[in-house]
Amino acid sequence: MTQRKSFGSDNQAGAHDAVVSALARANSGDAVGYGDDPWTRQATAALRTAFGARGDVFFVFTGTAANVLGLSLLLRSYEGVICAESAHVNVDECGAPERILGSKLLTVTTPDGKLTPDLIGARLAGRGDEHRVQPRVVTISQATELGTCYTLEELKSLGEFCRAEQLRLYIDGARLANAAAHLGCSLADLAAQADVLSFGGTKNGAMGVETVVVMAGELAADAPFLRKQQGQLVSKMRYLAVQFQALLDGDLWLRNASHANAMAQRLAGGIHGVPGVRLWQPVESNAVFASLDPAHIARLQKDWQFYVWDPTAQVVRWMTAFDTTEADVDAFVADVRRTAGE
Amino acid sequence: MTQRKSFGSDNQAGAHDAVVSALARANSGDAVGYGDDPWTRQATAALRTAFGARGDVFFVFTGTAANVLGLSLLLRSYEGVICAESAHVNVDECGAPERILGSKLLTVTTPDGKLTPDLIGARLAGRGDEHRVQPRVVTISQATELGTCYTLEELKSLGEFCRAEQLRLYIDGARLANAAAHLGCSLADLAAQADVLSFGGTKNGAMGVETVVVMAGELAADAPFLRKQQGQLVSKMRYLAVQFQALLDGDLWLRNASHANAMAQRLAGGIHGVPGVRLWQPVESNAVFASLDPAHIARLQKDWQFYVWDPTAQVVRWMTAFDTTEADVDAFVADVRRTAGE
Amino acid sequence: MTQRKSFGSDNQAGAHDAVVSALARANSGDAVGYGDDPWTRQATAALRTAFGARGDVFFVFTGTAANVLGLSLLLRSYEGVICAESAHVNVDECGAPERILGSKLLTVTTPDGKLTPDLIGARLAGRGDEHRVQPRVVTISQATELGTCYTLEELKSLGEFCRAEQLRLYIDGARLANAAAHLGCSLADLAAQADVLSFGGTKNGAMGVETVVVMAGELAADAPFLRKQQGQLVSKMRYLAVQFQALLDGDLWLRNASHANAMAQRLAGGIHGVPGVRLWQPVESNAVFASLDPAHIARLQKDWQFYVWDPTAQVVRWMTAFDTTEADVDAFVADVRRTAGE
Amino acid sequence: MTQRKSFGSDNQAGAHDAVVSALARANSGDAVGYGDDPWTRQATAALRTAFGARGDVFFVFTGTAANVLGLSLLLRSYEGVICAESAHVNVDECGAPERILGSKLLTVTTPDGKLTPDLIGARLAGRGDEHRVQPRVVTISQATELGTCYTLEELKSLGEFCRAEQLRLYIDGARLANAAAHLGCSLADLAAQADVLSFGGTKNGAMGVETVVVMAGELAADAPFLRKQQGQLVSKMRYLAVQFQALLDGDLWLRNASHANAMAQRLAGGIHGVPGVRLWQPVESNAVFASLDPAHIARLQKDWQFYVWDPTAQVVRWMTAFDTTEADVDAFVADVRRTAGE
Repeated sequence: MTQRKSFGSDNQAGAHDAVVSALARANSGDAVGYGDDPWTRQATAALRTAFGARGDVFFVFTGTAANVLGLSLLLRSYEGVICAESAHVNVDECGAPERILGSKLLTVTTPDGKLTPDLIGARLAGRGDEHRVQPRVVTISQATELGTCYTLEELKSLGEFCRAEQLRLYIDGARLANAAAHLGCSLADLAAQADVLSFGGTKNGAMGVETVVVMAGELAADAPFLRKQQGQLVSKMRYLAVQFQALLDGDLWLRNASHANAMAQRLAGGIHGVPGVRLWQPVESNAVFASLDPAHIARLQKDWQFYVWDPTAQVVRWMTAFDTTEADVDAFVADVRRTAGE
Repeated sequence: MTQRKSFGSDNQAGAHDAVVSALARANSGDAVGYGDDPWTRQATAALRTAFGARGDVFFVFTGTAANVLGLSLLLRSYEGVICAESAHVNVDECGAPERILGSKLLTVTTPDGKLTPDLIGARLAGRGDEHRVQPRVVTISQATELGTCYTLEELKSLGEFCRAEQLRLYIDGARLANAAAHLGCSLADLAAQADVLSFGGTKNGAMGVETVVVMAGELAADAPFLRKQQGQLVSKMRYLAVQFQALLDGDLWLRNASHANAMAQRLAGGIHGVPGVRLWQPVESNAVFASLDPAHIARLQKDWQFYVWDPTAQVVRWMTAFDTTEADVDAFVADVRRTAGE
Repeated sequence: MTQRKSFGSDNQAGAHDAVVSALARANSGDAVGYGDDPWTRQATAALRTAFGARGDVFFVFTGTAANVLGLSLLLRSYEGVICAESAHVNVDECGAPERILGSKLLTVTTPDGKLTPDLIGARLAGRGDEHRVQPRVVTISQATELGTCYTLEELKSLGEFCRAEQLRLYIDGARLANAAAHLGCSLADLAAQADVLSFGGTKNGAMGVETVVVMAGELAADAPFLRKQQGQLVSKMRYLAVQFQALLDGDLWLRNASHANAMAQRLAGGIHGVPGVRLWQPVESNAVFASLDPAHIARLQKDWQFYVWDPTAQVVRWMTAFDTTEADVDAFVADVRRTAGE
Repeated sequence: MTQRKSFGSDNQAGAHDAVVSALARANSGDAVGYGDDPWTRQATAALRTAFGARGDVFFVFTGTAANVLGLSLLLRSYEGVICAESAHVNVDECGAPERILGSKLLTVTTPDGKLTPDLIGARLAGRGDEHRVQPRVVTISQATELGTCYTLEELKSLGEFCRAEQLRLYIDGARLANAAAHLGCSLADLAAQADVLSFGGTKNGAMGVETVVVMAGELAADAPFLRKQQGQLVSKMRYLAVQFQALLDGDLWLRNASHANAMAQRLAGGIHGVPGVRLWQPVESNAVFASLDPAHIARLQKDWQFYVWDPTAQVVRWMTAFDTTEADVDAFVADVRRTAGE
């Protein structure tokens, strides 16, 4: 527990009160296990509608689990996944795609965490050659791990490229809500080009739940078995479902994300022009990436929790959350300014 | 939602109020993610003490995940797991051990779900033969899937046999609390012979949490990485930890289990002597297995939720939970008697 | 090297001279690697014709590799394989199906190593239940590991059952030649009901080569990639291909198998009526399973190489090969008689 | 079959006559299977001596299989392999390391296919962090896929770095013989820094055999089981063993490699100074990498078999083999000159 608000990660926040209340309300009497209960039916129906999914939605516990389940619907063992070098699935999942799926990741270096048709095209050599892993899925993160967002035009262009090249598109949507808030579009707009995507609840104010959204009906048949095999089928499913109910109710998910994004903008605005502090990426979600002097980083970390993203480039990451306040940001900005001015 | 209390599974119950309250209390301010928070430290320390574990404890979401993580600490890829044919790990995990671990299960037919040194010994052929999977782990369930319990003497005998044969012992403790309540012993007593075991919270009154207990220190080093790789490392860990805090507080886990066991005894007592109804297994935890006429089964299932365990042998399973009341049992027993008497 | 002919296994024989000659003849000049050479094209075409395969054939090195490749064409990760408890794939492949495929084997106890529709039917519980591995492939061995053969009628009945139940049929044909010789039928007759099968060269007189025969065209597309991934794509493919060319030329494969079978019959005839020696299985290929006194077994093993199949039941296995002579058999039979008569 | 000598790959050559003769000689009588025969004992003893291996050596069929088996001795599932982007194990094994081992490859971009301590050091971030795959093995190819060789000094420096960093060193020695010939050192010299390495027979004049050399004794215990599980345990092992016997006899392996290297030098010398033809890599084994005009490449490929390595950079690869003659090289060089001069 930190005294001061953490800028370490949006997963260091607690849960929104509405989520806790929903959990308590759902705690009444028996319910058939494994999802055959009214809360789960209501939440999955609402999510199918929100995404325009002809397939189905499946709750899991972690972002890693969502990515593994989602990708496992799309791949045979000799098929590979094109992703950005900086993708969570490549960097932060302790090799789960390789070990649990058995799939090779075909990584691409990007300046901003975003793939483009050209970058993907350069990874398509060796199709039909039995010595080579066959590229089959493109996975992008929306928002990306660098806090940037694909525009709807960029998504459309990626989707068209993938369909033309017989590639499938998976979206890691751990921060999909932040992208929707930034772009001012619906979840269905974001999902329109994807075959499968995840939608993160945890970083949006839930206690802990993610969902895998299968857009095309025919891809959903394997999912119940794979979710179970991957250790993600919970018996008391209602306690996952109601977390999403609470987030969907009155578009709480959007308000939470919009607020977190606004706090990142406030932070970025507050440090604008501070000598020696430079934004490293445009602020398009709830992350601020900035470079500053290592001595200043060290000074700030005495009082505030945040991560050094790249020690070589002296880049830090400051994340905001649904419960970051203007006062939190202002206090932090003041310290950045004080530190930089010393 | 069933109007009447379900006898389908102890995972159809809700969560104990103390668990819900603990979740709400923990929802205050920020916490560092992935377990580096005070709630997790307190809960894991309490569990290490309760089990007498020199290693460490790791929270996961499901029983399947606990078994996979626990076994993955004990096996190389060419080593196999001796288990009862009826074991959850063999029947009800959709092939997770084979797919996620890559391990072969060496199954043993048992009358009561319990392994013995003799039954294990008969599965040890081919050691040293490179064509054969090498038996390395014995896994038992305590309580078993048939509601029976290993006595402490039986556990000791298994432990000695395993050590003599250089086998490791894993215990699937999804209902370990019920076994402790039945045997009148401590968790440490149950764990004394094991290398690794799981301890189930979900069926004991939690919303959804299991723990993997690593008894020997040197086995715990791999666990953080494997838990992450297996998609079970949650960011907001406090919400798992406090569920166990609530269950440990004032031995709620034991009171919950004792009550559920008592309800099963009441049920078994209530049907004693009913014509055509026979107990199929001794009642040593919170399950009652009985055989009765298929027509009577069908009649009962119109009003009550429970599973037919073996359609051929006409065996049904009736589970009680921490929140099953005497009135629930009495109403059900009355219906069994009415149905059988028709 | 044993002085006397081994009855240990048909893989203890050397290679047929025609195979060695073919290898030497193929050793002329360059050839494009990985199968794009005239020897491979000729051998695969001949095999496709012999089996009536609309798909394709793929050479690999070992029986384990053939089974793994064949099954990998037919299974998703949550689908299981029904097989006899005694099947090579279950007993003698060091867990390759579980580790390399990630697939669960659903074993069936059989008296004679042969599956029947009834035995398979008893393993079909839990279809559609996400907690259970979904039965998808039936694998049989022809000839079986117990030396027995499925008749064409039995094969037809299995094939009809599998199609009706939406199961696929895989045949482990490590000794398919011996079955063809015993039944007096063609390879196409044996393959008619199968989706995929293997055809063993090694035990039939090759130095070391097996082939995977894909009967249906649409199943063959994955095979080149999976063979490569599984470490079975050899660069100098001609040296595998010509071994099958030699075996197919003038039906050498059939002559080799017929001779081995005849030697097994001679052996079985020779021990008929010897006191204390009983056939354990009917002799329908090149294996003789017999039970006899442990003291007699020990005496015989001083001079002859063979395996004790089941120490408890005192069953031994005597295998004949393409190069076993009548004199070899007669000398062995004389020793069995002498030992038994002492 | 090409009329003209192929410069496509050293695996397009046939086998050396001594190998074919050795196979024929070994084809006499029975031998116990799976390596318990005198040929295998003799060949493995000779290889252990040649490499100074305290562990053991294991024959397999392909380079992919050798790499998978070798790496599987060194890795737990959450540990990764640092390798060059251009490594065979990364590019040309259809994802076998990821699928069969479940291991992530941590690739490094190199100008010449060679890793250095600095390049490896830059890949060591995240050690101890459970979100990250833990770097554990460094794998290098000797000679590399770009035809370059590590000097003994470079090997020593890598070995020291690996030991200091608790990394293990694996060497892909598909062309180890060519490196030994180039460096004028022994196999033991090349192996001195490695924990495990492979030694290729196929590209050195065998029909098809590779060996995995385990330098440290304690690492060899798992290998028999893993080789079997990976489908690489052949029954008639003598036919693999005698291929290495033939190559070791009178240092045929070294003469073959030296000749192939000399032919590459002759080729490189022959094209020196030809306008528009530039060497892309130094010639340190039996490969010549050169860049030339795409039109000239196309013209040459009408008459000669070779691969375009990088279409963008217009780089081709010309491989020589043990049986490439001076006349072959001279004819090819003449055509290169003629084509370039047009």
